[in-house]
Amino acid sequence: MLKLDLQADFAKSVVGLLDELAQCGAERDGGVTRLLYTPSWLDAQRLLERRMAEAGLAVRYDCVGNLFGRLAGRGAESGVVLTGSHIDTVRCGGKYDGAYGIAASLTAVRYLHETFGQPIRPIEVVSFCEEEGSRFQLAYWGSGNVSGVFKPEQADGIVDAQGVTMREAMESAGFGRTGTGELPTAKRTDLSAFVEVHVEQGITLERFGERIGIVETIAGQRRYVVTVAGETNHAGTTPMTLRRDAMAGAAEMILFLERAAQKAGEPLVATVGSIASDPNVPNVIPGSVEFTLDIRHLSETLLTGFCDTVLGTFRMIAERRGLKIRVRSVLHTRPAPMDSVLAGRLERICTSRGIPYRRMMSGAGHDAQMFRSVCPTAMLFVPSRGGISHSPDEYTAPEDLALGTAVLAELLYELAYEEKTP
Amino acid sequence: MLKLDLQADFAKSVVGLLDELAQCGAERDGGVTRLLYTPSWLDAQRLLERRMAEAGLAVRYDCVGNLFGRLAGRGAESGVVLTGSHIDTVRCGGKYDGAYGIAASLTAVRYLHETFGQPIRPIEVVSFCEEEGSRFQLAYWGSGNVSGVFKPEQADGIVDAQGVTMREAMESAGFGRTGTGELPTAKRTDLSAFVEVHVEQGITLERFGERIGIVETIAGQRRYVVTVAGETNHAGTTPMTLRRDAMAGAAEMILFLERAAQKAGEPLVATVGSIASDPNVPNVIPGSVEFTLDIRHLSETLLTGFCDTVLGTFRMIAERRGLKIRVRSVLHTRPAPMDSVLAGRLERICTSRGIPYRRMMSGAGHDAQMFRSVCPTAMLFVPSRGGISHSPDEYTAPEDLALGTAVLAELLYELAYEEKTP
Repeated sequence: MLKLDLQADFAKSVVGLLDELAQCGAERDGGVTRLLYTPSWLDAQRLLERRMAEAGLAVRYDCVGNLFGRLAGRGAESGVVLTGSHIDTVRCGGKYDGAYGIAASLTAVRYLHETFGQPIRPIEVVSFCEEEGSRFQLAYWGSGNVSGVFKPEQADGIVDAQGVTMREAMESAGFGRTGTGELPTAKRTDLSAFVEVHVEQGITLERFGERIGIVETIAGQRRYVVTVAGETNHAGTTPMTLRRDAMAGAAEMILFLERAAQKAGEPLVATVGSIASDPNVPNVIPGSVEFTLDIRHLSETLLTGFCDTVLGTFRMIAERRGLKIRVRSVLHTRPAPMDSVLAGRLERICTSRGIPYRRMMSGAGHDAQMFRSVCPTAMLFVPSRGGISHSPDEYTAPEDLALGTAVLAELLYELAYEEKTP
Repeated sequence: MLKLDLQADFAKSVVGLLDELAQCGAERDGGVTRLLYTPSWLDAQRLLERRMAEAGLAVRYDCVGNLFGRLAGRGAESGVVLTGSHIDTVRCGGKYDGAYGIAASLTAVRYLHETFGQPIRPIEVVSFCEEEGSRFQLAYWGSGNVSGVFKPEQADGIVDAQGVTMREAMESAGFGRTGTGELPTAKRTDLSAFVEVHVEQGITLERFGERIGIVETIAGQRRYVVTVAGETNHAGTTPMTLRRDAMAGAAEMILFLERAAQKAGEPLVATVGSIASDPNVPNVIPGSVEFTLDIRHLSETLLTGFCDTVLGTFRMIAERRGLKIRVRSVLHTRPAPMDSVLAGRLERICTSRGIPYRRMMSGAGHDAQMFRSVCPTAMLFVPSRGGISHSPDEYTAPEDLALGTAVLAELLYELAYEEKTP
């Protein structure tokens, strides 16, 4: 068992790094915005690059902007133990989401290196370029490229709200060009395990007074963009009976979605986060309204059934109102079970140290789910105060940040320093 | 009776001027966008300034950017006969709305001047700077300043979607500064009549095969901005039962509004044209949603009752959902009856010439309503094909444009050239 009375040092290291990162993309209200490939995002990667180098790690980027800090292993051909999380944020998000997993990983690996020297197997700390899908309507871009679920070429066909392609954004941030010494491909085939620690972003651990969550399954998720098209017309001279009002149609759909989700019950969640009306002026009946759907459940079968029902009803609503409807699927991730052997190791670590823990599901998607078919993957949570997330009010206490780092360090020790293959 | 076999010339003049104006702010899809004080708006005013001068009119702007072309009268102190409409458009609107009233007025006044020389009373053609409320959430800015309903100083407190104040926009377009030779105030106290011709923007004239609409009353109108505030949170980890979702609340309100308006029956109309969600990303429950209401009716009493009911229900919906709601009234125009004597004159003109006409209401607001307490005011309509308006598909046939111009010319002749006081 490791010497883990270093929690004060862990807290100081993690909080210090989180505070530094929060300066990259700081908003006036205390929130943080680091959208993929923007200057604030690049600031954060450059900062981590320096901190990784200072910790003695060999630093490199891959061709989509994922950042790796490598502690070499003694074994000749041992698989890499990968640990970390994502550096991007939602618009005006908190300073823990994603960033904590990187700060904890870097802190843990530095501690292991300083305390136990070179490991048998190489360990790499990763700062994934993108997970949230906030700028481009495609999530898990970073881990998806590492795991091979996505290919870098897919950056050509995706545009942000300003019409900038992901390729253009990537190149303007200095990535994706040939001949710059980056890895030619992002996909890794040399991984022996992936471990991610993250804030819970829910209220379960706080409610039950537990300090570590061991994730058994990450919920499956569907994202759609729904476009409802009617007829632009004058708000004053078009009788209610002669309208084909895209806004009223969209409102009926959004309300139906909420009621269907309530009826389906937990753990199903359904959200309309983004909406746009065209031409979006007060005295014109909207000719089209576009909105997003985000729907999640732990069962692929139930998720499919729910989405089919909702989209079928949307089509009926559109038909009844004389509207056209177009539904684009922009994300489809299946529920992702985590590796049961690694979960068992985490459970043993918590039990042996007397840490109150819970085996649980994750309603939020995480980079870890992209590795389910690549290598054994583990994920652990620390509590989020009030369950608040994706908000400037996001908060996790320093002692919880430190405890998550300590448990992570112990698992990484087992995976990289012990002879037994993980 | 005037010699009005000049319709071919009227059509050529009006269509020519409309085509020229449509180049100012032309969109790729054939629509026209001339938002107040933007470069395309200024292009259009400068073009009209030249065309007015070529027609022998004395040209000047007032301090908010209204443009006047004056044909002097022989009488020493006679009141001015004012005629015209507005030069601004909605986003991607048609080329007839507003512009037609100016083109017809200029064509009619040039014809009268060339045919009958100097009138007894002065006639002024006006191009009002703003009527639509598309850029700033305040409509009738041009005519409202001329009639004294608004004061130029009110430009300080109003901002557009980019945070630019109306004052800044006005000054950047070259208006509102002192010492530039503009009229020191926009308010006019020397008017004897105001006459406006406009496209109907509805389907009534076309449906009944009539060619001229004589407006008896312009509907009263209320505009509100409703802000619904809940709690930003993670779309994946926040159970449906623990949400305070501003988007779902807004959807319930928008759907209620539509149903209440349908129940109230014609001529009530209610529209949500504009909406914005914050933070407006797919995987975050919106913390706030803001949308506009546009509600119209011919009866002030019924309009008040309807708005009270709707806003009362909105508050109940908000309370039930744990949301906060803020309602700002941004426009309140009472129903505006037009002058019955002038309407009688228009009716006589149509009857004597065998023109199929209709006395009717206007569901759309117009500059004419701002003059109801200032001077006798008349308004006439020409048909809109398919009733389509505020759209690139807006269209009125050249022969209808010409007929409206001819009827306008005849009324202006009676008002400005005949000895009898109008």
